[in-house]
Amino acid sequence: MGQRLGSIVIENVEPELEGGRYAVKRVAGENLTLSADIFKEGHDFLSAVARLRQVAPPRLDHGSHQSIETTMREINNDRWTAQVSLPSEGLYAFTVEAWVDVYRTWAAELQRKAQACQPIFSELREGAALLLELAGRAQPRSASDALTFSNASRMIGGSLDESLPSALDSAVRAATSSALIELATLYPDRSSAVRYQRELPVFVDREKARFSSWYEMFPRSASRSEKRHGTFKDCESWLRDISEMGFDTLYFPPIHPIGKTARKGKNNSVVALSDDVGSPWAIGSAEGGHKSIHPQLGTMEDFKHLIGEAKSVNLEVALDLAFQCAPDHPYLTEHPEWFYKRPDGTIKTAENPPKRYEDIVNFDFLGPARQSLWPELKSVVLFWIEVGIKIFRVDNPHTKPVQFWEWLIREIQVTHPDVIFLAEAFTRPKMMKALGKAGFSQSYTYFTWRNFKGELTDYLNELSHGPVAQYMRGNLWPNTPDILPQILQQGGTPAFKLRFALAATLSPSYGIYCGFEFCENRALPGTEEYVNSEKYQLVEWPGDRKADIRDYISAINQIRQLHPALRLSENLTFCDSDSERVLVYSKVDSDKTDKLLIAVSLDPYAPQEAIINLPLGDYGIEEHETYQVHELLSDTRSLWKGPTAQIRLTPESPAAIWSVLRLNRSEQSFDYYD
Amino acid sequence: MGQRLGSIVIENVEPELEGGRYAVKRVAGENLTLSADIFKEGHDFLSAVARLRQVAPPRLDHGSHQSIETTMREINNDRWTAQVSLPSEGLYAFTVEAWVDVYRTWAAELQRKAQACQPIFSELREGAALLLELAGRAQPRSASDALTFSNASRMIGGSLDESLPSALDSAVRAATSSALIELATLYPDRSSAVRYQRELPVFVDREKARFSSWYEMFPRSASRSEKRHGTFKDCESWLRDISEMGFDTLYFPPIHPIGKTARKGKNNSVVALSDDVGSPWAIGSAEGGHKSIHPQLGTMEDFKHLIGEAKSVNLEVALDLAFQCAPDHPYLTEHPEWFYKRPDGTIKTAENPPKRYEDIVNFDFLGPARQSLWPELKSVVLFWIEVGIKIFRVDNPHTKPVQFWEWLIREIQVTHPDVIFLAEAFTRPKMMKALGKAGFSQSYTYFTWRNFKGELTDYLNELSHGPVAQYMRGNLWPNTPDILPQILQQGGTPAFKLRFALAATLSPSYGIYCGFEFCENRALPGTEEYVNSEKYQLVEWPGDRKADIRDYISAINQIRQLHPALRLSENLTFCDSDSERVLVYSKVDSDKTDKLLIAVSLDPYAPQEAIINLPLGDYGIEEHETYQVHELLSDTRSLWKGPTAQIRLTPESPAAIWSVLRLNRSEQSFDYYD
Repeated sequence: MGQRLGSIVIENVEPELEGGRYAVKRVAGENLTLSADIFKEGHDFLSAVARLRQVAPPRLDHGSHQSIETTMREINNDRWTAQVSLPSEGLYAFTVEAWVDVYRTWAAELQRKAQACQPIFSELREGAALLLELAGRAQPRSASDALTFSNASRMIGGSLDESLPSALDSAVRAATSSALIELATLYPDRSSAVRYQRELPVFVDREKARFSSWYEMFPRSASRSEKRHGTFKDCESWLRDISEMGFDTLYFPPIHPIGKTARKGKNNSVVALSDDVGSPWAIGSAEGGHKSIHPQLGTMEDFKHLIGEAKSVNLEVALDLAFQCAPDHPYLTEHPEWFYKRPDGTIKTAENPPKRYEDIVNFDFLGPARQSLWPELKSVVLFWIEVGIKIFRVDNPHTKPVQFWEWLIREIQVTHPDVIFLAEAFTRPKMMKALGKAGFSQSYTYFTWRNFKGELTDYLNELSHGPVAQYMRGNLWPNTPDILPQILQQGGTPAFKLRFALAATLSPSYGIYCGFEFCENRALPGTEEYVNSEKYQLVEWPGDRKADIRDYISAINQIRQLHPALRLSENLTFCDSDSERVLVYSKVDSDKTDKLLIAVSLDPYAPQEAIINLPLGDYGIEEHETYQVHELLSDTRSLWKGPTAQIRLTPESPAAIWSVLRLNRSEQSFDYYD
Repeated sequence: MGQRLGSIVIENVEPELEGGRYAVKRVAGENLTLSADIFKEGHDFLSAVARLRQVAPPRLDHGSHQSIETTMREINNDRWTAQVSLPSEGLYAFTVEAWVDVYRTWAAELQRKAQACQPIFSELREGAALLLELAGRAQPRSASDALTFSNASRMIGGSLDESLPSALDSAVRAATSSALIELATLYPDRSSAVRYQRELPVFVDREKARFSSWYEMFPRSASRSEKRHGTFKDCESWLRDISEMGFDTLYFPPIHPIGKTARKGKNNSVVALSDDVGSPWAIGSAEGGHKSIHPQLGTMEDFKHLIGEAKSVNLEVALDLAFQCAPDHPYLTEHPEWFYKRPDGTIKTAENPPKRYEDIVNFDFLGPARQSLWPELKSVVLFWIEVGIKIFRVDNPHTKPVQFWEWLIREIQVTHPDVIFLAEAFTRPKMMKALGKAGFSQSYTYFTWRNFKGELTDYLNELSHGPVAQYMRGNLWPNTPDILPQILQQGGTPAFKLRFALAATLSPSYGIYCGFEFCENRALPGTEEYVNSEKYQLVEWPGDRKADIRDYISAINQIRQLHPALRLSENLTFCDSDSERVLVYSKVDSDKTDKLLIAVSLDPYAPQEAIINLPLGDYGIEEHETYQVHELLSDTRSLWKGPTAQIRLTPESPAAIWSVLRLNRSEQSFDYYD
């Protein structure tokens, strides 16, 4: 108990996720807004800083990253805030430190006493001492600042020896000058500073973790003939088309050898014919496991070549991470301890009774052999990182222990902070969130089944503004190989267009599964399964094209590229409209230069009109102003005035994306107007 | 990594205050409702318990208190809950533990497979093994349960050797009987149980910490003559009257020797005349300090006698804890190190420039000498506990470090959990809350200045239902020696009545300062200070009684005694009324037998009518039912029907408190009605 204790209370620090147990997520290049309640007994003035240090990746020279301090400012009611820049990817930790601004406190009290004509001799002596201390602290950093302080100290001390009130007056003026008070804040006495009890983690991703457009395809169907197994070479001929549609991420289901034991036949039949190709998620055979390539797709060299070709048209290849085995995966014989055995010695295949997945065996993630299993699975990820893959779509993570994912993702991202993991979990809400907290960079969402105004508004508000927004980034998929939703089965081309427009503008990340661009909508009756699902057989793409919305996709993706407002999630604001069938929302980028108003019809069958309400304030437009709206899909411009507008959407053009432009000049802008 | 790892996620445990940093507050005899999100990958059935252990007071035999487990139940959406009883005062800690209900999981899967006519041989073997393990775990506790399990195991195992499908059928039936499944939950395998990462503290007070009616008086004015200094003996003659008004707590400002140096004169004048008695908060003189009694009040024996007399009429004496010194307090010479010295050697008196408190010197709570100061202050509290005081009203805690209070209150309550501390802090909201978190049992509030419907509703909702309700218990004071609010200065007797009714029914704890019952309303012009404030002089009570509302106070306090709904805070529900001047609220006790509807006029000047909306659902009354309301202040009964009623309040009777009674029988209750 030697030195003086600080007594500042620092609490309610944000962003904080479960007491710092999990990291919040941000993107490199943006600012982190920190805030905290900071206060103390009595009336002292306080100073506070946010302290940010990088935790990972480690410094090359094995030193530790230095903390960077950013001054915090009080907003009101003891709430303080700071903007901290996040220059690069990695794991960071921040905390808050505060101390008494002793000099400012003293000066303010002096001023009030002097104004009330109370005796101030003792106070001035105190101030002279404080200034001497300041001079001492300034000396090592700035001789001139030190001189300023010692001069002020001498002057104030000197005034005490004179009996002239005017000398006291000028001492008070000098001592309380705002320049001197500000200078003093640069050399604070922090010996009694208080630091917030915890360091709070922030994981900083590259921007793609937030802003991405995914296209999913099965390489084995790339041959454009269902008679011939597609190859990586075949895939290369698809790249230009995918890139021209404007996608930036090309995701492949597992590319590993497919098990032969209990292989599934077409349409998930339990008996496979000799030419059936099986499910790519049934990983592993005599030909290899998770680090091997299915021979019919080509060689590792072919795959690397494909990655390079994709990159040249701005496509990043993403792989599937399906941590499960076909019964003939080499792991089963090499590491039987990684699998759970029943009392009769049999290994259980995956199931959710009465559903059975005979072609798949799960790892026993929690058994004693996890000490070798987990590192092996980590080595799988590192293997593909080495090959050139930095994005992984993780299959069914909710069927594996959450703590395994937390461990794996941290282990990988500590050295490879640019690696992105997408959680393909369609499960109960709390598990979805738990996976986000555990570290997944992006998550599949319930968007796939949200079609109406109320449910879309509620859900997207939760994803964009709720506590969830701190750690879970929605990736909106209107379809997947597992899910062909009712609206797409029944709504024809307009349904595909409107669902695409919603996915691509409600969220910075979205994806479609191949066939969507041709409005493929044939389902097994009464299910959401595709007829002749590509999961179990080769599919001839393009088949009979009923429709082709590639230009529409392309147009919207181009708008996404040009408009930074579409790169953010937290800027989604829903707007009123008088129609239940028209969803209207606004997006404005962080420096408020890019201002979008978006309206999407939720009705694939009939034209819809609506009177909509614009958030003019968000656009910086006054109620009386005329402004221009530029509808980007049709490239048409109009002049609007006031906060309401009437709009019309049709099944052919179910979406409108207006860029809202303030007219900078009006007659009042001219000098001679007044 | 030897044994199996559990993978259940336990999070969002409530009540939890800042990650367990502070204790939530409850009262002995009530139940604590715990809840948590509990889930796991896959489809296993889970079991969960809340574990509660007492931390303090320590066990007499120096052993540690055993944890008590309460079974949790899933409500929905992975949210689990339990009610845990809190039998006695003290500090508790709870956590949550969960494990897989292996047998139930196995049985459910077996059932689904059997229904789907899938092979179940392997499953039955697994079940037979599980039952044998259950028998082993049951054996030490119940031979008969063990036998049940081993018989079931044998029967299931035996069925495998028979080829009859009927044998399998009955094996499945036996294995999945709900009796067997329930019995199995009593002997779980908890080797892979997961426990929530933290233990969360709960402080359990005696009920008085929540439910109390305070009366504040200055013993020195008890003589009923301003010519003679009152004594503890004089106070005894007041007890019956205070008790008859229905109060249960009698609070005295400091009773210690009052400083002579810089003593304040009447009406806070800086010059005291020789007969001026000074402020009792200027503690300490040659006659003693915080452990002494002001000689003019009497002796320690007198004080103890008074405590006993008070107790005999159900009044508990509360003392003031003002940790500050008059300049002639013995501490200043005995322990100069406990005070902060300026560079010129002077000790600063208390001030908030330009306001000065020349008769008071503050301790330097944070200096190095805190290692002897803090224990001395703790010994002050222990001294008065020894004398018989268990309730302390703490003066201006917001001007002392929060961590000092946290330390002091914990130190005291570890051995004396029945000691109650009331924080007299009128300061910024976050400091008020911080003191609640630090451990104060009750807190003064902004109620004193809240007069209108919106502000009363917002503030009381915050206190009763906000996060604050977990740790801050409002004690509502319509007046204090420092504050005679405008509404009391100007609203006459009706204002005193309505403010009293609000204080005594909006919150389980409230208090008044002497003179309130006689509607004393003379203020220094333009201030909230009483004329001739008792803080600085003797006052002759009763003076010229303008009015006397003792019967009114008595009536409401009697209702408080008889109606358990008024002992709770979280049961406050505001009801709609069509008048801005009528505040209507409902209170129902926890077993829903005591149902009150309360209406208070906020207008001291004119009668007010309103159409009010009753929360019939909370009262268990159907819309079509006729019910009785019994207005307790006037003892009048009426029959009402439907959720609205028209009411009238007057300046003379500004409040109504209806006991809502369901008529248990109607014509439909009779057998022959149908």
